[in-house]
Amino acid sequence: MDFAAELKRQVTRIDRGLDQLVPPAATRPARLHTAMRYSLEAGGKRLRPVLVLATAELFGVEDDSALAAAVAIECIHTYSLIHDDLPCMDNDDLRRGRPTAHRQFDEATALLAGDALLTHAFALLAGNYPDNLAGALVRELAAAAGSRRLIGGQMEDLLAEKKSDATGDELEFIHLNKTAAMIEAALVMGGLIGGANEDAIGTLRRAGRHLGLAFQIVDDILDATADTATLGKTAGKDAKAGKTTYVRLHGIDASQRLAQAQTEAVFAALRALPGDTTFLDRFADALIHRQK
Amino acid sequence: MDFAAELKRQVTRIDRGLDQLVPPAATRPARLHTAMRYSLEAGGKRLRPVLVLATAELFGVEDDSALAAAVAIECIHTYSLIHDDLPCMDNDDLRRGRPTAHRQFDEATALLAGDALLTHAFALLAGNYPDNLAGALVRELAAAAGSRRLIGGQMEDLLAEKKSDATGDELEFIHLNKTAAMIEAALVMGGLIGGANEDAIGTLRRAGRHLGLAFQIVDDILDATADTATLGKTAGKDAKAGKTTYVRLHGIDASQRLAQAQTEAVFAALRALPGDTTFLDRFADALIHRQK
Repeated sequence: MDFAAELKRQVTRIDRGLDQLVPPAATRPARLHTAMRYSLEAGGKRLRPVLVLATAELFGVEDDSALAAAVAIECIHTYSLIHDDLPCMDNDDLRRGRPTAHRQFDEATALLAGDALLTHAFALLAGNYPDNLAGALVRELAAAAGSRRLIGGQMEDLLAEKKSDATGDELEFIHLNKTAAMIEAALVMGGLIGGANEDAIGTLRRAGRHLGLAFQIVDDILDATADTATLGKTAGKDAKAGKTTYVRLHGIDASQRLAQAQTEAVFAALRALPGDTTFLDRFADALIHRQK
Repeated sequence: MDFAAELKRQVTRIDRGLDQLVPPAATRPARLHTAMRYSLEAGGKRLRPVLVLATAELFGVEDDSALAAAVAIECIHTYSLIHDDLPCMDNDDLRRGRPTAHRQFDEATALLAGDALLTHAFALLAGNYPDNLAGALVRELAAAAGSRRLIGGQMEDLLAEKKSDATGDELEFIHLNKTAAMIEAALVMGGLIGGANEDAIGTLRRAGRHLGLAFQIVDDILDATADTATLGKTAGKDAKAGKTTYVRLHGIDASQRLAQAQTEAVFAALRALPGDTTFLDRFADALIHRQK
Protein backbone atom coordinates (compact mmCIF):
# COMPACT_ATOMS: atom_id res chain seq x y z
CA MET A 1 0.00 0.00 0.00
CA ASP A 2 1.16 3.51 -0.83
CA PHE A 3 0.42 5.04 2.57
CA ALA A 4 1.13 8.64 1.61
CA ALA A 5 -1.17 8.42 -1.42
CA GLU A 6 -3.93 6.76 0.57
CA LEU A 7 -3.64 9.40 3.31
CA LYS A 8 -3.79 12.14 0.72
CA ARG A 9 -6.87 10.56 -0.86
CA GLN A 10 -8.67 10.60 2.50
CA VAL A 11 -7.62 14.18 3.32
CA THR A 12 -8.82 15.33 -0.10
CA ARG A 13 -12.20 13.68 0.51
CA ILE A 14 -12.42 15.39 3.89
CA ASP A 15 -11.56 18.82 2.51
CA ARG A 16 -14.25 18.34 -0.13
CA GLY A 17 -16.71 17.20 2.57
CA LEU A 18 -15.95 20.24 4.71
CA ASP A 19 -16.65 22.48 1.75
CA GLN A 20 -19.93 20.74 0.92
CA LEU A 21 -21.29 20.21 4.42
CA VAL A 22 -20.56 23.53 6.13
CA PRO A 23 -22.60 26.62 5.13
CA PRO A 24 -20.90 28.85 2.52
CA ALA A 25 -18.92 31.79 3.89
CA ALA A 26 -21.42 34.25 2.39
CA THR A 27 -24.34 32.80 4.40
CA ARG A 28 -25.84 35.49 6.62
CA PRO A 29 -24.21 36.50 8.91
CA ALA A 30 -21.18 36.30 6.62
CA ARG A 31 -18.67 37.24 9.33
CA LEU A 32 -19.69 34.23 11.40
CA HIS A 33 -19.63 31.73 8.54
CA THR A 34 -16.36 33.17 7.23
CA ALA A 35 -14.80 32.62 10.66
CA MET A 36 -16.14 29.06 10.88
CA ARG A 37 -14.56 28.24 7.52
CA TYR A 38 -11.34 30.12 8.29
CA SER A 39 -10.58 27.77 11.17
CA LEU A 40 -11.85 24.62 9.45
CA GLU A 41 -9.85 25.35 6.31
CA ALA A 42 -6.62 26.05 8.18
CA GLY A 43 -5.69 22.45 7.45
CA GLY A 44 -4.17 20.48 10.24
CA LYS A 45 -3.61 16.75 10.23
CA ARG A 46 -7.30 15.80 9.84
CA LEU A 47 -6.43 12.98 12.23
CA ARG A 48 -9.94 12.37 13.56
CA PRO A 49 -11.88 12.51 10.27
CA VAL A 50 -9.30 10.28 8.55
CA LEU A 51 -9.85 7.74 11.33
CA VAL A 52 -13.63 7.88 10.79
CA LEU A 53 -13.29 7.24 7.05
CA ALA A 54 -10.60 4.57 7.35
CA THR A 55 -12.51 2.68 10.06
CA ALA A 56 -15.76 2.82 8.10
CA GLU A 57 -13.90 1.41 5.06
CA LEU A 58 -12.46 -1.36 7.22
CA PHE A 59 -16.07 -2.37 7.92
CA GLY A 60 -17.06 -2.33 4.28
CA VAL A 61 -18.30 1.21 3.69
CA GLU A 62 -17.39 1.95 0.07
CA ASP A 63 -19.34 5.14 -0.57
CA ASP A 64 -19.27 8.61 1.01
CA SER A 65 -21.66 7.75 3.80
CA ALA A 66 -19.06 8.25 6.53
CA LEU A 67 -18.16 11.72 5.26
CA ALA A 68 -20.77 13.67 7.26
CA ALA A 69 -19.58 12.03 10.50
CA ALA A 70 -15.98 12.77 9.56
CA VAL A 71 -16.87 16.43 9.01
CA ALA A 72 -18.88 16.50 12.24
CA ILE A 73 -15.93 15.30 14.31
CA GLU A 74 -13.62 17.82 12.63
CA CYS A 75 -16.15 20.56 13.48
CA ILE A 76 -15.97 19.52 17.15
CA HIS A 77 -12.18 19.36 17.10
CA THR A 78 -11.91 22.77 15.44
CA TYR A 79 -14.38 24.40 17.87
CA SER A 80 -12.35 23.05 20.79
CA LEU A 81 -9.15 24.54 19.33
CA ILE A 82 -10.80 27.94 18.73
CA HIS A 83 -12.07 28.12 22.31
CA ASP A 84 -8.81 26.69 23.70
CA ASP A 85 -6.83 29.44 21.95
CA LEU A 86 -8.95 32.29 23.42
CA PRO A 87 -7.24 34.76 25.77
CA CYS A 88 -9.07 33.39 28.81
CA MET A 89 -7.76 29.89 28.01
CA ASP A 90 -4.32 29.36 26.39
CA ASN A 91 -4.19 32.86 24.87
CA ASP A 92 -2.47 31.66 21.73
CA ASP A 93 -1.77 33.75 18.64
CA LEU A 94 -0.82 31.00 16.25
CA ARG A 95 -2.56 27.82 15.14
CA ARG A 96 -1.71 25.64 12.19
CA GLY A 97 0.75 28.34 11.13
CA ARG A 98 -1.88 31.09 10.87
CA PRO A 99 -3.31 33.66 13.28
CA THR A 100 -5.80 32.07 15.66
CA ALA A 101 -9.48 32.89 15.05
CA HIS A 102 -9.66 35.62 17.70
CA ARG A 103 -6.51 37.25 16.28
CA GLN A 104 -7.81 37.08 12.71
CA PHE A 105 -11.35 38.26 13.63
CA ASP A 106 -12.04 39.18 17.26
CA GLU A 107 -12.80 37.34 20.47
CA ALA A 108 -16.58 37.50 20.18
CA THR A 109 -16.55 36.21 16.60
CA ALA A 110 -14.19 33.40 17.58
CA LEU A 111 -16.40 32.47 20.54
CA LEU A 112 -19.52 32.34 18.37
CA ALA A 113 -17.77 30.52 15.51
CA GLY A 114 -16.75 27.84 18.01
CA ASP A 115 -20.29 27.58 19.36
CA ALA A 116 -21.61 27.32 15.80
CA LEU A 117 -19.20 24.54 14.80
CA LEU A 118 -20.13 22.56 17.92
CA THR A 119 -23.82 22.91 17.14
CA HIS A 120 -23.32 22.14 13.45
CA ALA A 121 -21.68 18.81 14.28
CA PHE A 122 -24.94 17.52 15.74
CA ALA A 123 -27.00 18.99 12.90
CA LEU A 124 -24.81 17.05 10.46
CA LEU A 125 -25.26 13.74 12.27
CA ALA A 126 -29.04 14.07 12.67
CA GLY A 127 -29.41 15.38 9.11
CA ASN A 128 -27.37 12.82 7.18
CA TYR A 129 -28.06 9.41 8.69
CA PRO A 130 -31.09 7.18 9.22
CA ASP A 131 -32.50 7.93 12.67
CA ASN A 132 -31.29 4.74 14.37
CA LEU A 133 -27.71 5.33 13.24
CA ALA A 134 -27.96 9.11 13.90
CA GLY A 135 -29.07 8.40 17.47
CA ALA A 136 -26.05 6.19 18.14
CA LEU A 137 -23.69 8.70 16.51
CA VAL A 138 -25.08 11.67 18.49
CA ARG A 139 -24.82 9.69 21.73
CA GLU A 140 -21.21 8.75 20.98
CA LEU A 141 -20.12 12.24 19.93
CA ALA A 142 -22.00 14.09 22.69
CA ALA A 143 -20.47 11.81 25.33
CA ALA A 144 -16.94 12.13 23.92
CA ALA A 145 -17.22 15.92 23.58
CA GLY A 146 -19.12 16.41 26.84
CA SER A 147 -18.45 17.63 30.37
CA ARG A 148 -17.03 14.32 31.58
CA ARG A 149 -14.65 13.87 28.66
CA LEU A 150 -13.35 16.51 26.18
CA ILE A 151 -14.54 19.56 28.11
CA GLY A 152 -13.79 17.93 31.47
CA GLY A 153 -10.25 17.24 30.27
CA GLN A 154 -9.85 20.86 29.22
CA MET A 155 -11.11 22.05 32.60
CA GLU A 156 -8.66 19.82 34.51
CA ASP A 157 -5.88 20.83 32.13
CA LEU A 158 -6.55 24.45 33.00
CA LEU A 159 -6.58 23.73 36.73
CA ALA A 160 -3.39 21.65 36.43
CA GLU A 161 -1.63 24.48 34.61
CA LYS A 162 -1.86 26.53 37.76
CA LYS A 163 0.21 23.99 39.66
CA SER A 164 3.55 22.47 38.68
CA ASP A 165 2.96 19.39 40.83
CA ALA A 166 0.00 17.80 39.05
CA THR A 167 0.03 14.04 39.64
CA GLY A 168 0.26 11.20 37.17
CA ASP A 169 -3.42 10.52 37.90
CA GLU A 170 -4.40 14.07 36.96
CA LEU A 171 -2.28 13.87 33.82
CA GLU A 172 -3.97 10.61 32.82
CA PHE A 173 -7.47 12.07 33.38
CA ILE A 174 -6.57 15.07 31.23
CA HIS A 175 -5.16 13.08 28.35
CA LEU A 176 -7.74 10.32 28.39
CA ASN A 177 -10.42 12.96 28.12
CA LYS A 178 -8.95 15.99 26.41
CA THR A 179 -7.18 13.98 23.72
CA ALA A 180 -8.14 10.31 23.66
CA ALA A 181 -11.93 10.74 23.90
CA MET A 182 -12.30 12.24 20.44
CA ILE A 183 -9.89 9.76 18.86
CA GLU A 184 -11.86 6.90 20.42
CA ALA A 185 -15.07 8.50 19.11
CA ALA A 186 -13.60 8.75 15.60
CA LEU A 187 -12.89 5.02 15.47
CA VAL A 188 -16.21 4.11 17.11
CA MET A 189 -18.23 6.34 14.78
CA GLY A 190 -16.52 4.80 11.77
CA GLY A 191 -17.39 1.37 13.15
CA LEU A 192 -21.01 2.32 13.82
CA ILE A 193 -21.44 3.54 10.23
CA GLY A 194 -19.90 0.28 9.01
CA GLY A 195 -22.28 -1.77 11.17
CA ALA A 196 -19.54 -3.15 13.45
CA ASN A 197 -20.82 -5.44 16.20
CA GLU A 198 -20.54 -4.68 19.91
CA ASP A 199 -17.27 -6.61 20.32
CA ALA A 200 -15.64 -4.76 17.46
CA ILE A 201 -16.88 -1.42 18.83
CA GLY A 202 -15.20 -2.26 22.16
CA THR A 203 -11.97 -3.10 20.35
CA LEU A 204 -12.13 0.13 18.35
CA ARG A 205 -12.62 2.04 21.58
CA ARG A 206 -9.53 0.38 23.07
CA ALA A 207 -7.48 1.10 19.98
CA GLY A 208 -8.62 4.73 20.08
CA ARG A 209 -7.73 5.10 23.73
CA HIS A 210 -4.17 3.89 23.21
CA LEU A 211 -3.79 5.87 20.00
CA GLY A 212 -4.95 9.01 21.81
CA LEU A 213 -2.47 8.50 24.62
CA ALA A 214 0.37 7.83 22.15
CA PHE A 215 -0.60 10.97 20.23
CA GLN A 216 -0.59 13.09 23.39
CA ILE A 217 2.75 11.82 24.67
CA VAL A 218 4.33 12.65 21.31
CA ASP A 219 2.65 16.08 21.53
CA ASP A 220 4.37 16.69 24.87
CA ILE A 221 7.70 15.54 23.45
CA LEU A 222 7.37 17.80 20.39
CA ASP A 223 6.44 20.79 22.54
CA ALA A 224 9.70 20.25 24.43
CA THR A 225 11.93 19.51 21.44
CA ALA A 226 10.60 21.09 18.23
CA ASP A 227 10.58 24.74 17.19
CA THR A 228 7.60 27.01 16.53
CA ALA A 229 8.14 27.18 12.76
CA THR A 230 8.04 23.38 12.47
CA LEU A 231 5.01 22.98 14.78
CA GLY A 232 2.95 25.80 13.27
CA LYS A 233 2.00 26.68 16.86
CA THR A 234 3.96 28.14 19.73
CA ALA A 235 6.62 25.66 20.91
CA GLY A 236 8.03 25.33 24.42
CA LYS A 237 4.78 26.54 25.97
CA ASP A 238 4.55 23.72 28.49
CA ALA A 239 7.97 24.23 30.06
CA LYS A 240 7.51 28.00 30.05
CA ALA A 241 4.19 27.60 31.87
CA GLY A 242 5.73 25.12 34.33
CA LYS A 243 3.03 22.69 33.20
CA THR A 244 3.04 19.05 34.21
CA THR A 245 3.54 16.88 31.12
CA TYR A 246 4.79 13.37 30.35
CA VAL A 247 8.17 14.92 29.61
CA ARG A 248 8.25 16.74 32.95
CA LEU A 249 7.13 13.66 34.90
CA HIS A 250 9.21 11.04 33.10
CA GLY A 251 11.85 12.78 30.92
CA ILE A 252 12.19 12.59 27.12
CA ASP A 253 13.57 9.05 26.83
CA ALA A 254 10.99 7.40 29.08
CA SER A 255 8.23 9.40 27.35
CA GLN A 256 9.36 8.03 23.99
CA ARG A 257 9.24 4.50 25.38
CA LEU A 258 5.76 5.17 26.80
CA ALA A 259 4.58 6.39 23.41
CA GLN A 260 5.99 3.29 21.76
CA ALA A 261 4.23 1.03 24.30
CA GLN A 262 0.91 2.77 23.64
CA THR A 263 1.43 2.34 19.91
CA GLU A 264 2.10 -1.38 20.40
CA ALA A 265 -1.21 -1.58 22.29
CA VAL A 266 -2.89 0.07 19.29
CA PHE A 267 -1.40 -2.56 16.97
CA ALA A 268 -2.58 -5.34 19.29
CA ALA A 269 -6.13 -3.99 19.28
CA LEU A 270 -6.12 -3.56 15.52
CA ARG A 271 -5.01 -7.18 15.06
CA ALA A 272 -8.24 -8.25 16.80
CA LEU A 273 -10.32 -6.57 14.10
CA PRO A 274 -11.48 -8.22 10.88
CA GLY A 275 -10.13 -7.09 7.51
CA ASP A 276 -6.97 -5.41 6.36
CA THR A 277 -5.86 -2.89 8.98
CA THR A 278 -2.65 -1.92 7.14
CA PHE A 279 -3.70 1.71 6.71
CA LEU A 280 -4.62 2.11 10.38
CA ASP A 281 -1.36 0.43 11.43
CA ARG A 282 0.64 2.76 9.24
CA PHE A 283 -1.39 5.72 10.46
CA ALA A 284 -0.61 4.92 14.12
CA ASP A 285 3.04 4.45 13.22
CA ALA A 286 3.17 7.79 11.40
CA LEU A 287 1.61 9.56 14.39
CA ILE A 288 4.28 8.43 16.79
CA HIS A 289 7.08 9.33 14.40
CA ARG A 290 5.66 12.69 13.35
CA GLN A 291 7.74 15.87 13.51
CA LYS A 292 4.84 18.25 14.25
CA MET B 1 -57.88 27.51 35.46
CA ASP B 2 -55.57 28.75 38.20
CA PHE B 3 -52.82 30.02 35.89
CA ALA B 4 -50.33 30.87 38.64
CA ALA B 5 -50.67 27.42 40.21
CA GLU B 6 -50.35 25.69 36.85
CA LEU B 7 -47.27 27.73 35.97
CA LYS B 8 -45.75 26.91 39.34
CA ARG B 9 -46.47 23.20 38.79
CA GLN B 10 -44.59 23.26 35.48
CA VAL B 11 -41.64 25.25 36.86
CA THR B 12 -41.36 22.80 39.78
CA ARG B 13 -41.28 19.87 37.33
CA ILE B 14 -38.57 21.63 35.33
CA ASP B 15 -36.43 22.35 38.39
CA ARG B 16 -36.70 18.69 39.35
CA GLY B 17 -35.84 17.67 35.79
CA LEU B 18 -32.79 19.92 35.77
CA ASP B 19 -31.60 18.33 38.98
CA GLN B 20 -32.12 14.80 37.67
CA LEU B 21 -30.87 15.21 34.12
CA VAL B 22 -27.71 17.27 34.58
CA PRO B 23 -24.62 15.64 36.16
CA PRO B 24 -24.26 16.28 39.93
CA ALA B 25 -22.02 19.19 40.92
CA ALA B 26 -19.48 16.78 42.43
CA THR B 27 -18.93 14.97 39.11
CA ARG B 28 -15.28 15.25 38.07
CA PRO B 29 -14.26 17.93 37.27
CA ALA B 30 -16.37 19.42 40.07
CA ARG B 31 -15.58 23.02 39.19
CA LEU B 32 -17.06 22.57 35.71
CA HIS B 33 -20.21 20.79 36.87
CA THR B 34 -20.66 23.25 39.73
CA ALA B 35 -20.54 26.12 37.24
CA MET B 36 -23.03 24.40 34.89
CA ARG B 37 -25.47 24.00 37.77
CA TYR B 38 -24.83 27.48 39.16
CA SER B 39 -26.14 29.06 35.97
CA LEU B 40 -28.95 26.54 35.42
CA GLU B 41 -30.16 26.90 38.99
CA ALA B 42 -30.16 30.69 38.93
CA GLY B 43 -33.84 30.45 38.14
CA GLY B 44 -35.15 32.71 35.46
CA LYS B 45 -38.57 32.45 33.90
CA ARG B 46 -38.11 28.94 32.46
CA LEU B 47 -40.04 30.30 29.49
CA ARG B 48 -38.79 27.81 26.92
CA PRO B 49 -39.05 24.60 28.97
CA VAL B 50 -42.54 25.57 30.19
CA LEU B 51 -43.55 25.93 26.54
CA VAL B 52 -42.16 22.47 25.74
CA LEU B 53 -44.12 20.85 28.57
CA ALA B 54 -47.35 22.78 27.98
CA THR B 55 -47.31 22.08 24.24
CA ALA B 56 -46.63 18.39 24.78
CA GLU B 57 -49.58 18.26 27.19
CA LEU B 58 -51.78 19.99 24.62
CA PHE B 59 -51.03 17.04 22.32
CA GLY B 60 -51.87 14.47 24.97
CA VAL B 61 -48.57 13.79 26.71
CA GLU B 62 -49.51 13.00 30.31
CA ASP B 63 -46.25 11.62 31.67
CA ASP B 64 -42.75 13.10 32.08
CA SER B 65 -41.62 12.20 28.58
CA ALA B 66 -41.25 15.84 27.51
CA LEU B 67 -39.04 16.68 30.48
CA ALA B 68 -35.69 15.76 28.90
CA ALA B 69 -36.44 18.00 25.91
CA ALA B 70 -37.50 20.79 28.27
CA VAL B 71 -34.21 20.47 30.14
CA ALA B 72 -32.27 20.30 26.87
CA ILE B 73 -33.72 23.58 25.64
CA GLU B 74 -33.02 25.25 29.00
CA CYS B 75 -29.41 24.01 28.74
CA ILE B 76 -29.11 25.71 25.33
CA HIS B 77 -30.71 28.91 26.61
CA THR B 78 -28.45 29.00 29.66
CA TYR B 79 -25.29 28.36 27.64
CA SER B 80 -26.23 31.23 25.33
CA LEU B 81 -26.65 33.56 28.32
CA ILE B 82 -23.32 32.51 29.86
CA HIS B 83 -21.46 33.15 26.61
CA ASP B 84 -23.43 36.35 25.93
CA ASP B 85 -22.43 37.73 29.34
CA LEU B 86 -18.68 37.17 28.78
CA PRO B 87 -16.40 40.23 28.65
CA CYS B 88 -15.84 39.84 24.89
CA MET B 89 -19.63 39.91 24.33
CA ASP B 90 -21.94 41.99 26.56
CA ASN B 91 -19.50 42.05 29.51
CA ASP B 92 -22.28 41.80 32.07
CA ASP B 93 -21.79 41.32 35.82
CA LEU B 94 -25.34 40.47 36.79
CA ARG B 95 -27.79 37.84 35.56
CA ARG B 96 -31.00 36.77 37.23
CA GLY B 97 -29.99 38.87 40.26
CA ARG B 98 -26.72 37.01 40.82
CA PRO B 99 -23.14 37.43 39.59
CA THR B 100 -22.74 36.13 36.04
CA ALA B 101 -20.84 32.84 35.66
CA HIS B 102 -17.52 34.45 34.75
CA ARG B 103 -17.81 36.79 37.76
CA GLN B 104 -18.67 33.93 40.12
CA PHE B 105 -16.01 31.58 38.71
CA ASP B 106 -13.70 32.88 35.98
CA GLU B 107 -13.88 33.41 32.25
CA ALA B 108 -12.40 30.06 31.26
CA THR B 109 -14.75 28.14 33.54
CA ALA B 110 -17.74 30.09 32.21
CA LEU B 111 -16.67 29.43 28.62
CA LEU B 112 -16.33 25.69 29.24
CA ALA B 113 -19.55 25.47 31.28
CA GLY B 114 -21.39 27.04 28.34
CA ASP B 115 -19.79 24.60 25.89
CA ALA B 116 -20.73 21.72 28.19
CA LEU B 117 -24.37 22.78 28.51
CA LEU B 118 -24.66 23.10 24.73
CA THR B 119 -23.21 19.61 24.26
CA HIS B 120 -25.32 18.14 27.04
CA ALA B 121 -28.53 19.31 25.36
CA PHE B 122 -27.87 16.96 22.43
CA ALA B 123 -26.81 14.12 24.72
CA LEU B 124 -30.16 14.47 26.52
CA LEU B 125 -32.19 14.29 23.33
CA ALA B 126 -30.33 11.32 21.88
CA GLY B 127 -30.27 9.56 25.24
CA ASN B 128 -33.91 9.90 26.28
CA TYR B 129 -36.06 9.37 23.19
CA PRO B 130 -36.63 6.60 20.68
CA ASP B 131 -34.25 7.18 17.76
CA ASN B 132 -36.87 8.39 15.29
CA LEU B 133 -38.12 11.06 17.70
CA ALA B 134 -34.58 11.89 18.88
CA GLY B 135 -33.54 12.49 15.28
CA ALA B 136 -36.36 14.99 14.73
CA LEU B 137 -35.65 16.73 18.05
CA VAL B 138 -31.91 17.03 17.38
CA ARG B 139 -32.58 18.42 13.89
CA GLU B 140 -35.02 20.99 15.31
CA LEU B 141 -32.80 22.09 18.19
CA ALA B 142 -29.57 22.15 16.19
CA ALA B 143 -31.20 24.29 13.50
CA ALA B 144 -32.76 26.71 16.01
CA ALA B 145 -29.52 27.02 18.00
CA GLY B 146 -27.24 27.04 14.94
CA SER B 147 -25.25 29.53 12.89
CA ARG B 148 -28.21 30.70 10.82
CA ARG B 149 -30.50 31.26 13.80
CA LEU B 150 -29.58 31.69 17.52
CA ILE B 151 -25.85 32.17 16.99
CA GLY B 152 -26.39 34.11 13.77
CA GLY B 153 -28.74 36.45 15.64
CA GLN B 154 -26.13 36.99 18.34
CA MET B 155 -23.49 37.74 15.73
CA GLU B 156 -25.68 40.34 13.97
CA ASP B 157 -26.68 41.78 17.33
CA LEU B 158 -23.02 42.31 18.13
CA LEU B 159 -22.36 43.92 14.76
CA ALA B 160 -25.45 46.11 15.12
CA GLU B 161 -24.32 47.31 18.55
CA LYS B 162 -21.39 48.98 16.91
CA LYS B 163 -23.72 51.18 14.89
CA SER B 164 -26.63 53.28 16.13
CA ASP B 165 -28.31 53.21 12.73
CA ALA B 166 -29.15 49.54 12.37
CA THR B 167 -32.15 49.14 10.08
CA GLY B 168 -35.54 47.62 10.81
CA ASP B 169 -34.47 44.68 8.61
CA GLU B 170 -31.38 44.06 10.72
CA LEU B 171 -33.44 44.33 13.90
CA GLU B 172 -35.93 41.79 12.56
CA PHE B 173 -33.16 39.35 11.59
CA ILE B 174 -31.67 39.65 15.06
CA HIS B 175 -34.90 39.11 16.93
CA LEU B 176 -36.28 36.38 14.70
CA ASN B 177 -33.08 34.46 15.26
CA LYS B 178 -31.62 35.48 18.59
CA THR B 179 -34.96 35.34 20.40
CA ALA B 180 -37.77 33.78 18.37
CA ALA B 181 -35.85 30.73 17.08
CA MET B 182 -35.62 29.05 20.48
CA ILE B 183 -39.22 29.88 21.40
CA GLU B 184 -40.37 28.39 18.10
CA ALA B 185 -38.22 25.33 18.81
CA ALA B 186 -39.79 24.95 22.27
CA LEU B 187 -43.31 24.77 20.85
CA VAL B 188 -42.27 22.55 17.93
CA MET B 189 -40.36 20.13 20.19
CA GLY B 190 -43.39 19.87 22.50
CA GLY B 191 -45.52 19.13 19.43
CA LEU B 192 -43.08 16.53 18.09
CA ILE B 193 -43.11 14.66 21.41
CA GLY B 194 -46.90 14.78 21.40
CA GLY B 195 -47.02 13.39 17.87
CA ALA B 196 -48.48 16.56 16.31
CA ASN B 197 -49.01 16.32 12.55
CA GLU B 198 -47.21 18.48 10.01
CA ASP B 199 -49.97 21.09 9.88
CA ALA B 200 -49.98 21.50 13.65
CA ILE B 201 -46.17 21.73 13.68
CA GLY B 202 -46.41 24.59 11.18
CA THR B 203 -48.97 26.34 13.36
CA LEU B 204 -46.82 25.89 16.45
CA ARG B 205 -43.87 27.36 14.56
CA ARG B 206 -45.97 30.41 13.63
CA ALA B 207 -47.20 30.84 17.20
CA GLY B 208 -43.61 30.60 18.45
CA ARG B 209 -42.35 33.16 15.98
CA HIS B 210 -44.95 35.74 17.04
CA LEU B 211 -44.48 34.92 20.72
CA GLY B 212 -40.74 35.37 20.35
CA LEU B 213 -41.15 38.76 18.70
CA ALA B 214 -43.67 39.88 21.35
CA PHE B 215 -41.26 38.73 24.07
CA GLN B 216 -38.35 40.64 22.54
CA ILE B 217 -40.30 43.88 22.04
CA VAL B 218 -41.34 43.79 25.70
CA ASP B 219 -37.70 43.10 26.59
CA ASP B 220 -36.66 46.29 24.78
CA ILE B 221 -39.43 48.25 26.54
CA LEU B 222 -38.41 46.94 29.98
CA ASP B 223 -34.75 47.73 29.36
CA ALA B 224 -35.81 51.33 28.69
CA THR B 225 -38.31 51.68 31.53
CA ALA B 226 -37.55 49.30 34.43
CA ASP B 227 -34.76 49.48 36.99
CA THR B 228 -31.92 47.04 37.58
CA ALA B 229 -33.27 45.74 40.90
CA THR B 230 -36.58 44.80 39.28
CA LEU B 231 -34.97 43.23 36.19
CA GLY B 232 -32.29 41.27 38.04
CA LYS B 233 -29.96 42.32 35.23
CA THR B 234 -28.44 45.65 34.26
CA ALA B 235 -31.20 48.02 33.05
CA GLY B 236 -30.82 50.85 30.54
CA LYS B 237 -27.99 49.03 28.77
CA ASP B 238 -29.44 49.50 25.30
CA ALA B 239 -29.79 53.28 25.45
CA LYS B 240 -26.39 53.61 27.09
CA ALA B 241 -24.84 51.54 24.31
CA GLY B 242 -26.70 53.57 21.67
CA LYS B 243 -28.14 50.26 20.48
CA THR B 244 -30.91 50.04 17.91
CA THR B 245 -34.02 48.58 19.55
CA TYR B 246 -37.76 48.62 18.91
CA VAL B 247 -37.98 51.47 21.42
CA ARG B 248 -35.31 53.47 19.63
CA LEU B 249 -36.84 52.86 16.20
CA HIS B 250 -40.51 53.29 17.11
CA GLY B 251 -40.79 54.85 20.61
CA ILE B 252 -42.38 53.30 23.68
CA ASP B 253 -46.06 53.65 22.72
CA ALA B 254 -45.71 52.22 19.23
CA SER B 255 -43.54 49.41 20.62
CA GLN B 256 -46.29 48.50 23.06
CA ARG B 257 -48.80 48.39 20.20
CA LEU B 258 -46.40 46.21 18.18
CA ALA B 259 -46.05 43.80 21.10
CA GLN B 260 -49.84 43.65 21.43
CA ALA B 261 -50.23 42.93 17.72
CA GLN B 262 -47.70 40.10 17.91
CA THR B 263 -49.55 38.68 20.91
CA GLU B 264 -52.83 38.77 18.98
CA ALA B 265 -51.10 36.81 16.23
CA VAL B 266 -50.06 34.25 18.84
CA PHE B 267 -53.69 33.91 19.99
CA ALA B 268 -54.85 33.48 16.38
CA ALA B 269 -52.33 30.69 15.80
CA LEU B 270 -53.25 28.96 19.07
CA ARG B 271 -56.94 29.01 18.08
CA ALA B 272 -56.04 26.88 15.05
CA LEU B 273 -54.72 24.13 17.32
CA PRO B 274 -56.77 21.26 18.73
CA GLY B 275 -57.49 21.04 22.46
CA ASP B 276 -57.64 23.51 25.29
CA THR B 277 -55.01 26.22 24.76
CA THR B 278 -56.02 28.26 27.82
CA PHE B 279 -52.68 27.85 29.54
CA LEU B 280 -50.71 28.88 26.44
CA ASP B 281 -53.05 31.87 25.92
CA ARG B 282 -52.56 32.98 29.50
CA PHE B 283 -48.82 32.38 29.22
CA ALA B 284 -48.56 34.64 26.15
CA ASP B 285 -50.66 37.27 27.90
CA ALA B 286 -48.45 37.13 31.01
CA LEU B 287 -45.32 37.56 28.90
CA ILE B 288 -46.49 40.77 27.33
CA HIS B 289 -47.62 42.21 30.68
CA ARG B 290 -44.54 41.12 32.63
CA GLN B 291 -42.55 43.58 34.74
CA LYS B 292 -39.16 41.90 34.32
